Amino acid sequence: MVQLSEDILHKVITKRPEISHKGTFGRVVLIGGSQQYGGAIIMSAEACVKSGAGLTTVITARKNHTALHARLPEAMVLDFNETNTIYQTLEKADVILIGPGLGLAKEMALFLKGVVSNQNVGQWLVVDGSAITLFKDYNLSLKFPAQTVFTPHQAEWAHLSGLKFVEQTNENNRAKQALLGAKIVLKSHRTTIYDEAVAYYQNPLGNPGMATGGTGDTLAGMITGFLAQFEKNIDTVAAAVYLHSLIGDDLAEDNYVVLPTSISEALPRYMKKYASERK
Amino acid sequence: MVQLSEDILHKVITKRPEISHKGTFGRVVLIGGSQQYGGAIIMSAEACVKSGAGLTTVITARKNHTALHARLPEAMVLDFNETNTIYQTLEKADVILIGPGLGLAKEMALFLKGVVSNQNVGQWLVVDGSAITLFKDYNLSLKFPAQTVFTPHQAEWAHLSGLKFVEQTNENNRAKQALLGAKIVLKSHRTTIYDEAVAYYQNPLGNPGMATGGTGDTLAGMITGFLAQFEKNIDTVAAAVYLHSLIGDDLAEDNYVVLPTSISEALPRYMKKYASERK
Amino acid sequence: MVQLSEDILHKVITKRPEISHKGTFGRVVLIGGSQQYGGAIIMSAEACVKSGAGLTTVITARKNHTALHARLPEAMVLDFNETNTIYQTLEKADVILIGPGLGLAKEMALFLKGVVSNQNVGQWLVVDGSAITLFKDYNLSLKFPAQTVFTPHQAEWAHLSGLKFVEQTNENNRAKQALLGAKIVLKSHRTTIYDEAVAYYQNPLGNPGMATGGTGDTLAGMITGFLAQFEKNIDTVAAAVYLHSLIGDDLAEDNYVVLPTSISEALPRYMKKYASERK
Amino acid sequence: MVQLSEDILHKVITKRPEISHKGTFGRVVLIGGSQQYGGAIIMSAEACVKSGAGLTTVITARKNHTALHARLPEAMVLDFNETNTIYQTLEKADVILIGPGLGLAKEMALFLKGVVSNQNVGQWLVVDGSAITLFKDYNLSLKFPAQTVFTPHQAEWAHLSGLKFVEQTNENNRAKQALLGAKIVLKSHRTTIYDEAVAYYQNPLGNPGMATGGTGDTLAGMITGFLAQFEKNIDTVAAAVYLHSLIGDDLAEDNYVVLPTSISEALPRYMKKYASERK
Repeated sequence: MVQLSEDILHKVITKRPEISHKGTFGRVVLIGGSQQYGGAIIMSAEACVKSGAGLTTVITARKNHTALHARLPEAMVLDFNETNTIYQTLEKADVILIGPGLGLAKEMALFLKGVVSNQNVGQWLVVDGSAITLFKDYNLSLKFPAQTVFTPHQAEWAHLSGLKFVEQTNENNRAKQALLGAKIVLKSHRTTIYDEAVAYYQNPLGNPGMATGGTGDTLAGMITGFLAQFEKNIDTVAAAVYLHSLIGDDLAEDNYVVLPTSISEALPRYMKKYASERK
Repeated sequence: MVQLSEDILHKVITKRPEISHKGTFGRVVLIGGSQQYGGAIIMSAEACVKSGAGLTTVITARKNHTALHARLPEAMVLDFNETNTIYQTLEKADVILIGPGLGLAKEMALFLKGVVSNQNVGQWLVVDGSAITLFKDYNLSLKFPAQTVFTPHQAEWAHLSGLKFVEQTNENNRAKQALLGAKIVLKSHRTTIYDEAVAYYQNPLGNPGMATGGTGDTLAGMITGFLAQFEKNIDTVAAAVYLHSLIGDDLAEDNYVVLPTSISEALPRYMKKYASERK
Repeated sequence: MVQLSEDILHKVITKRPEISHKGTFGRVVLIGGSQQYGGAIIMSAEACVKSGAGLTTVITARKNHTALHARLPEAMVLDFNETNTIYQTLEKADVILIGPGLGLAKEMALFLKGVVSNQNVGQWLVVDGSAITLFKDYNLSLKFPAQTVFTPHQAEWAHLSGLKFVEQTNENNRAKQALLGAKIVLKSHRTTIYDEAVAYYQNPLGNPGMATGGTGDTLAGMITGFLAQFEKNIDTVAAAVYLHSLIGDDLAEDNYVVLPTSISEALPRYMKKYASERK
Repeated sequence: MVQLSEDILHKVITKRPEISHKGTFGRVVLIGGSQQYGGAIIMSAEACVKSGAGLTTVITARKNHTALHARLPEAMVLDFNETNTIYQTLEKADVILIGPGLGLAKEMALFLKGVVSNQNVGQWLVVDGSAITLFKDYNLSLKFPAQTVFTPHQAEWAHLSGLKFVEQTNENNRAKQALLGAKIVLKSHRTTIYDEAVAYYQNPLGNPGMATGGTGDTLAGMITGFLAQFEKNIDTVAAAVYLHSLIGDDLAEDNYVVLPTSISEALPRYMKKYASERK
């Protein structure tokens, strides 16, 4: 077991190369936001853009486009039914996040199936929220599990892994992770990250002020934004998890509740502070 | 009579338990916002989320969803006509606020009737604004009056209680409260809170800079957010009332008019300041 | 001629009475914002609410409602075609502003005619922007000219008064004002206010950084907000004009262009600074 | 070759004349923002208004109007299909920007053709993003090339000029510029500006934190806003380019990624700092 520390930030967050353009920092597609849960994908998008992803397209119910633009004109938008453009956009994506506020409708399961079965070599997938439930319920399977990150909270992990809460020991979780092959970010009081490459990562940070709707959507967006720019591996996922809690803990010094959007707001400054020279 | 003081804040606002998740801090449903008065329920939602409610769903005219998301992506949304989802959501709610910007249309009276008659054991109800008028006009009755809070201003109280302005003495108000059984937050220059559990609470704070549209909607949202997280009793209601005026008075030091949304903005910092160790 | 100074602010902006409610500070209706010019009435509304008007309803194209709520949930909204509610709302208004972004469509002329011909005893009217043009083009007349304020820029004044730019001397302007009977705020490099009650007021402040779209809409909203709360007379109009330029000059110390919305943002602090004891 | 420095800012940004009105600082029309890319034209509009353009109208898909107003009520809006009003508005424009988020649909090519072929004597055109691609694909030609600015990144320049990346030497670029006659702002790691009037300008500033979606849209809006107010020549274009990078570099001191909208936010303060006395 490796306890995460600021070292993971210095290791992962590198200074940007002088000669670069927005494509250098990744093409991201974020999928989520039903009629009822539009705010979730908006929060993911804020985290993704403010962590530095180069180009971010959000596929969400049309109803959510205006609020997204009003908060974050930096993102591009597509409606779930713009099929042709969606396929072209997904094909070129470096990282795809699916799940925040997606809901459990059957069409969303089909959409998820399309994303999962069209995953490219080198393309990473982050599966969050209701997409985890749909993945299990529709018995989907991964083409490139090692390039896929699941970000369940404990109930979603119970559903995905079949492990009851009391059975969710590190040993059992690692066994289930090995079976799935994907990376697992198991969110809880102390988030744990499972992957074959490391025994597992334990996040020592986080606080109960972060226990509010949207915190997970923000984390998912950060993981996606980090994978878009930095090396695509478990360390990068871990750095996003650690920084999310680090900012949350700092904000909790002065705030009873930590609004998820305030974490995203702080990202550019925190990432600057930890950026190390490229080797 | 008990004069409210900072003591009520220290008593009610406790540090969050380390092991917790968003469900720990309550599931809230806010109902209001017609075609004309959408801003009211948006302001209630800001107060509710920023006071720390765990999960907040707003039921409002579809027309208001985008503005709500643009200001507060942390909240979830439903339209008044999404009947199935609404029933499921209401059933699981710990606290329901109905009234801000609801208007007086007949369908809203039916909606209110549905909410009132389906109140669960342990589920609290906050009835504000036009919902108070409708409650009286449609002759509705409460299943669990002791778990219900009415937040009338003087004219709404006159309508609900039958007491003319000059008759609204503490003695008469207490008698009417006893009849209704519900808790009463009677808003005025010096807000008074009536409940059988205490003689009554008097709020010594507040200022005329707060006399602007939206101040009451913000208070209703705060009361709801407080009830979602803290002990469900009259002290928690009183703490929300006191803090609302305390922040308002501080803001009035530098501002001729106190914008209601600026009270909500300050909530996380103020609540942190007053949070006491859990016993 | 009276040169305006800070004295007018101390004279007009009085501390609020302790015993008061939102109705004490006026019911305002703002009318404007076509399909093309929605931003104008939004800026007026921000100025009006942030100057402290008690209750503000905006009548504007439905298309503009969401943007208004997203910026200013404190305001209520109506669409131009909600005729019944509009009449009821106008009837109860203490001050009505018509014109910002209204456009020159014939239906708007009819709307203006309705407002002008239904003006109540004691109800004040502020006529701005395209409403000034329509007033002239449709040959409308005022029921209570002494309770009406026109806020033309020089071209609109030329149209309304028949005076060419070179003819717009103080003497000629005063003669035309006497004919109209209404108060005139003639906006220019140095705004002048004409009324029979005073010779005329000259505003010594203002700067070219304020020469940008929306500055006039903001002023119209401030005049309306001031008339809603303070004594309804020419001094109150003059105080709004002076404060608008005073804030603009302060902002121009650090800003090349003074965004109109930044003037409104500063209103609560400035008004607090100048508020004098009530006599 | 001239290396740009702060001198260009002092030269171009002059104090505003005391006697002036919003028309003095230019009438601007911005055209762009399809269903998918609405954020782009919103970011251009923010840069244009905050750089001080007098009157800004945005022609964009109706879907984008609300988000634009929510962020920037100072701008006016038109939908692509409001043909009559569009022609009248374009005719009176001092500067027109076309391209940010415009997309490659055939109707947009026709729209671009209309704009290009109706360019007035003295009216400047800024052609950005997909409008550059359309200009080439539809084989359009300029009426007043010397009053036209193209703002391609390297791939767009390759398409427009026929020069492959390795062929894009200063010599070749200058030859192609001479052929086109228009001014060229070739965006890259170190942006270069080509025009017959100067050998060429080299921008020494800029940083990889600016490599994110929207940075180019913001620059296009700034160039447009500068041309609206200051002398219409290559120096004014160069000043906008230089200031855009200067602000970006300052922001990058504390931010890992420089959000494009944060550059626009800083414009009024920076322009004030560099404004020189008018000669």
